Amino acid sequence: MITLASDFGSPYPAAMKGVICSRTDAQLVDVAHDLPRQDPRAAAFWLRETLPYFPPAVHLAVVDPGVGTDRRALAVRVGDHALVAPDNGLLRPVARRLADRSAATADDIAAYEITVDDPASSTFHGRDVFAPAAAEIHEAGVDRIDAVDLLSRIDLDSCVDRRFPEPTREGDTVHGEVLVVDDFGNVITNIPGEELAGLKQATVNGVSAPVVDTFDRVGSGERLLTVGSHGYVECDVNKGRGEAAFGLAAGDSVRIEADRSEHTG
Amino acid sequence: MITLASDFGSPYPAAMKGVICSRTDAQLVDVAHDLPRQDPRAAAFWLRETLPYFPPAVHLAVVDPGVGTDRRALAVRVGDHALVAPDNGLLRPVARRLADRSAATADDIAAYEITVDDPASSTFHGRDVFAPAAAEIHEAGVDRIDAVDLLSRIDLDSCVDRRFPEPTREGDTVHGEVLVVDDFGNVITNIPGEELAGLKQATVNGVSAPVVDTFDRVGSGERLLTVGSHGYVECDVNKGRGEAAFGLAAGDSVRIEADRSEHTG
Amino acid sequence: MITLASDFGSPYPAAMKGVICSRTDAQLVDVAHDLPRQDPRAAAFWLRETLPYFPPAVHLAVVDPGVGTDRRALAVRVGDHALVAPDNGLLRPVARRLADRSAATADDIAAYEITVDDPASSTFHGRDVFAPAAAEIHEAGVDRIDAVDLLSRIDLDSCVDRRFPEPTREGDTVHGEVLVVDDFGNVITNIPGEELAGLKQATVNGVSAPVVDTFDRVGSGERLLTVGSHGYVECDVNKGRGEAAFGLAAGDSVRIEADRSEHTG
Repeated sequence: MITLASDFGSPYPAAMKGVICSRTDAQLVDVAHDLPRQDPRAAAFWLRETLPYFPPAVHLAVVDPGVGTDRRALAVRVGDHALVAPDNGLLRPVARRLADRSAATADDIAAYEITVDDPASSTFHGRDVFAPAAAEIHEAGVDRIDAVDLLSRIDLDSCVDRRFPEPTREGDTVHGEVLVVDDFGNVITNIPGEELAGLKQATVNGVSAPVVDTFDRVGSGERLLTVGSHGYVECDVNKGRGEAAFGLAAGDSVRIEADRSEHTG
Repeated sequence: MITLASDFGSPYPAAMKGVICSRTDAQLVDVAHDLPRQDPRAAAFWLRETLPYFPPAVHLAVVDPGVGTDRRALAVRVGDHALVAPDNGLLRPVARRLADRSAATADDIAAYEITVDDPASSTFHGRDVFAPAAAEIHEAGVDRIDAVDLLSRIDLDSCVDRRFPEPTREGDTVHGEVLVVDDFGNVITNIPGEELAGLKQATVNGVSAPVVDTFDRVGSGERLLTVGSHGYVECDVNKGRGEAAFGLAAGDSVRIEADRSEHTG
Repeated sequence: MITLASDFGSPYPAAMKGVICSRTDAQLVDVAHDLPRQDPRAAAFWLRETLPYFPPAVHLAVVDPGVGTDRRALAVRVGDHALVAPDNGLLRPVARRLADRSAATADDIAAYEITVDDPASSTFHGRDVFAPAAAEIHEAGVDRIDAVDLLSRIDLDSCVDRRFPEPTREGDTVHGEVLVVDDFGNVITNIPGEELAGLKQATVNGVSAPVVDTFDRVGSGERLLTVGSHGYVECDVNKGRGEAAFGLAAGDSVRIEADRSEHTG
């Protein structure tokens, strides 16, 4: 199986699929091709939150604002999975998550530079570099990735890393950050859901909302705080968009405090 | 084969696909993931109009504004097909259509509640409840759905139903309703195409348009009435959007009358 | 393998997939279903630029403003590939490209009219005419396309052709045309990339921009000229939209000249 993720929209992913299908008969599964454009940080989040649900596979991910520069093209093996992406931090968070989930040891993790001497274009390495590499790895088998000609072993620590910020606590206040806003307008923070335990009402940057377990505990169009499907605190609106109602965007700081005033309940 | 339909946009469907692929090697076919958001009525229409074209399969459909509430999660077997969806009426219309098409008898139809004791989230049952159930049914085989541990037999009549309104006739006037507006802006009513038989021109809520069999019988940007691919009267515009030209939206009442005035022809 | 391309948006492609899966167990690969709507010229470009990357397959392509009129439905065999589309020029450019790539001889190329006596609809031949034909060809095998009952041999030269304009040179000036604007806003011309060889700066309709090999050679939001992944001159913006910055749209004339003024470098 080869999964595909990109910010390419349409129809560029089709050329990648064609290249892959010309080299291997792997099952193809689209993850998404509308990842936030040229935003490796958001893409790194979504890869971490989706790819670990898949069985062992080769995962191709291309969000690549530096295409054609000297940024490297990478393949990383994590246990039975292989990740193929530009060296811009895209795959480090999902690699850590996959390693945690599979209890992979250091021996099960290895990084490679993809070397394509003369790609057909400087602007579409998804088609000319990453897709061929993903296909070759699939053909060889992830456990025999060492045998793939296109790959040269490198040190994983030499690859660009990207770590999401950790929230901090100061008395009753938790300081965090908005990681991404999803397609529904839900504002996903980096604050673990446990921080909402026992609270009935809380404020986010001073804006108060009830803490609930499901959207329909509040009226249509009303704000809520909940533990989202990623395990983080989300600032949402029932049948509406949290980003607008809370005035929050990706990267914004958030300050969450218990609200013990009268309107709680 | 497992088909997938949702209003999840992107990239949430990928997590469902990962969960399914981790449990079964079924072929996956995307039906749509941009069904009208949190609109089970429109989704029920589109499921009825698309799923019956598929060969026997497990059909996963998640448009679920009540996720996390006590609404039940359902699986319904209709002959060789299985439908998996929240209990909000989403699957009753397609279940009836599938039964009609396959001449399924009462014995071939059975409903089940999906019981997942402790789903990982309250907000993403597509990933945590419905995808695992679809995979388990596929693994067992639809004809052995009774053997799937997650399922408890229930009475189909206890499930939420959803029936589209029937048009009525009063003299030469047919009263109906807009079922949905499609991606092209075509206004799809609940009025059977036969009602246009023999007419050259008709009015919809007083707006006149020619009755034609194909779009290009009228000029670019001009209104037309036709029997659409679902068999219903549609209010459309050649190379334009019928919803704007006729001023109609889903749920609106429509009144169609023959127009025998001079401009007919 | 059957690839699918259309301008149908969602969820109409699902009905085509269902029809195909009911007749053959081919692997389905989506090329794109958001091709520029009712624009066979743009679709012909994208088909030519994507389908040749695929291994031998049946390629279904439906952008069909004339659906229901007497325009013919076509199947064209080119070597091991088969193309299925309405007779509006959609498949001639990709057929030529496939023939070039495979060194197919005249004997390897054959055109057929698809005859479906009584399609279920006048408005959705994707579902009722083209999908069944693609499935039947796949079932028979492309090399045995002659045996498919739905098909009648015709002369390829009788089919609607569509040729993209060739650029012309007048002294140091190259006159061309915008073929399409892609999803990123990149303006793709019909001028071969070689025309930029040796240039450091050039003007497009009088607007000057540096000639670079990758986007990030210029600052964020700045104009650039480059040889795109299709091999043509593109008028782009780093992390922005070239169509807006250059004021260009599909079909516009472009005049490219070397700019040897001082700001070069």
